[in-house]
Amino acid sequence: MNAQDALGNDGERRRRFARIALSFVAGPGDLVLGALLRSCGPAEAFAAVCDGRPPGPDGAAGPGGFPGLSRALARWAARLDAVPTDAKLAAWERAGIRIVCPGDPEWPTQLDVLGAARPLLLWLRGCADLRLACLRSVSVVGARAATAYGRHVATEMAAALAERDWAVISGGAYGIDGCAHLGALGGGGVTVSVLASGLSYGYPQGHHELFAAIAKQGAVVSEWPPDRSPTRPGFLVRNRVIAALSRGTVVVEAALRSGALNTARHARDLCRPLMAVPGPVTSTMSEGCHEIIREWGAVCVTRAQDVIEHVSPVGEGLADRRRGPARPRDSLDPKATAVLEAVPARAGAGPAAIAAAAGLDLDTTMRCLGALAAAGFVERCARGWRIRKNT
Amino acid sequence: MNAQDALGNDGERRRRFARIALSFVAGPGDLVLGALLRSCGPAEAFAAVCDGRPPGPDGAAGPGGFPGLSRALARWAARLDAVPTDAKLAAWERAGIRIVCPGDPEWPTQLDVLGAARPLLLWLRGCADLRLACLRSVSVVGARAATAYGRHVATEMAAALAERDWAVISGGAYGIDGCAHLGALGGGGVTVSVLASGLSYGYPQGHHELFAAIAKQGAVVSEWPPDRSPTRPGFLVRNRVIAALSRGTVVVEAALRSGALNTARHARDLCRPLMAVPGPVTSTMSEGCHEIIREWGAVCVTRAQDVIEHVSPVGEGLADRRRGPARPRDSLDPKATAVLEAVPARAGAGPAAIAAAAGLDLDTTMRCLGALAAAGFVERCARGWRIRKNT
Repeated sequence: MNAQDALGNDGERRRRFARIALSFVAGPGDLVLGALLRSCGPAEAFAAVCDGRPPGPDGAAGPGGFPGLSRALARWAARLDAVPTDAKLAAWERAGIRIVCPGDPEWPTQLDVLGAARPLLLWLRGCADLRLACLRSVSVVGARAATAYGRHVATEMAAALAERDWAVISGGAYGIDGCAHLGALGGGGVTVSVLASGLSYGYPQGHHELFAAIAKQGAVVSEWPPDRSPTRPGFLVRNRVIAALSRGTVVVEAALRSGALNTARHARDLCRPLMAVPGPVTSTMSEGCHEIIREWGAVCVTRAQDVIEHVSPVGEGLADRRRGPARPRDSLDPKATAVLEAVPARAGAGPAAIAAAAGLDLDTTMRCLGALAAAGFVERCARGWRIRKNT
Repeated sequence: MNAQDALGNDGERRRRFARIALSFVAGPGDLVLGALLRSCGPAEAFAAVCDGRPPGPDGAAGPGGFPGLSRALARWAARLDAVPTDAKLAAWERAGIRIVCPGDPEWPTQLDVLGAARPLLLWLRGCADLRLACLRSVSVVGARAATAYGRHVATEMAAALAERDWAVISGGAYGIDGCAHLGALGGGGVTVSVLASGLSYGYPQGHHELFAAIAKQGAVVSEWPPDRSPTRPGFLVRNRVIAALSRGTVVVEAALRSGALNTARHARDLCRPLMAVPGPVTSTMSEGCHEIIREWGAVCVTRAQDVIEHVSPVGEGLADRRRGPARPRDSLDPKATAVLEAVPARAGAGPAAIAAAAGLDLDTTMRCLGALAAAGFVERCARGWRIRKNT
């Protein structure tokens, strides 16, 4: 290894550590930090936090460069004691938690559309390669207080997506999130849970076994350091990642003030396909879905095939056309259909009356009646011809 | 009365009788007759049927004028014995059935958009003025084999439309049609039933009492002579009238092969607002509604207000904005909200930690904590401040 390489690797290691350190002093989605990182690297940014002054020889960001930068630097500096020791980081690594940074092979580059709100890094536990898993993925989100209907639909849809090799992305909450993961696991597919708490904290506690199962077949992901507890605004910040990771977002069941509509708004703002599953209009738990179908133009989807068609490139992943049940009379030609429709159900009618009603001549009518009788549609009776009852 | 007037009235009477006679020899929606009536008056058309040759000195329609005209004239002539006597017509009039022709004050001129498929005339029983009733009307249609859900929604929606002075238009079938009428009657409004059978025949028989109730508060209408029984194709022919009479059509519940989708197609082809009520995706009886929302761009409506907003002129009939339940914290200002969201639920935290988490200075944080405590959102505890549980 020559000196250049060693220096390069060392620089890379410094940048990575700076990113990790910054993730402990600033909260996810901090737009001031995002703006700072667009003007300098993470190492310079972290040095600025430690120095308490903007980076560059004369404070390069300068007056007006980043509104609130000085205040933010002070705020971040106040939390410098939260930056973990190497031993702590190594302990998390031993616990199966890895860190994925922008530029890493596993980094999902679709997150870059978030701009200044792009995550600093992601904490990850699981066997899936996050980038590969999310290339063909759909976010399935909805209410915690889901109804039996919503839980059923989320489970079935996620299972059907998994069976068609589409990964499912969701949060970690009870209700629709949990059902989406369970459905994907049952369908033998990859599923990704994006938490608003640290991975070791794993909120909600009742889903610890689910998170373990997800890690075995997919990945559990978070922007927060492993031991952080969740906060209310954290869920909203997290939602942008759920929307940005996947090709499109489906809201399965959501009331008007559901957090799932916040994820939907992120998907819409990112111009990603947005879909919603309708439900009974008598259920307040579907009001949010109906609202975004009507007011935002979300596509009304009722099955996994609809979702796949909508998130696939034009002409790929086409859903089967829906058809009602086939009926025997569908295969009749137009003249035979006209004759059949002119034959009375009960009383019976003569060929002349049937010909007049069908608007056909007598010869054609007689020929059609013969064919219809042979096929079991009509039968002779005292007064002529009548519809044959199904036997 | 001078000779001119007498002749004029006489001409009017002849034209009216010709229209009635034609309605007995040709079926509703007969496009050949519709085309003929665009080139000559009803009296000339009826004379042509009686003469068995196209109207005009040398058969004005001429070769290629109307494809199928000669055959149609022969077909119509074969049914001339169906033309009723004056006594028969007078008997129907005594039975409360009146005839409304194009040009009559009660004729709903919006039917003229049907062109050659415009009804020859309408048979009508009821107290409502058809033209006035339909000026502010919505067609509410759906499946005969409706579920309890569909029946409930149709009834409620029609009642709410009636309460807002919108007339309801539908067919006469069991299921959604019947519920729409019952809802409108219950809401004290006008309702119009468009039948595919004659008014005296009144199909289905089980709705005779309903038809009587509709006539008392609205109108029962048909293109078919009063004693005609219905035919399968007749229902499809009838549907264009349901779509054309109203400002817009709502499909409440329909499977994929429901006749209600035929009415929806007419509404779409006439460029009238088309709406559908979503339902559980697990119900095949809502598949047709979801299909037209997704594939045809039908508007997803969940209540009468949505319907009225969609069929009203821009800026009129606006629906209330949907809101979820109001929460006390909605009224807090952004800083107080940030502080409240930084206060832990159970353990409690000191003001400095809360200020850091909220991204605010200590003074502002202390002021907000005081206000939040006074409003009952937070309380002091051993370790600082915590969320106050609802008591």
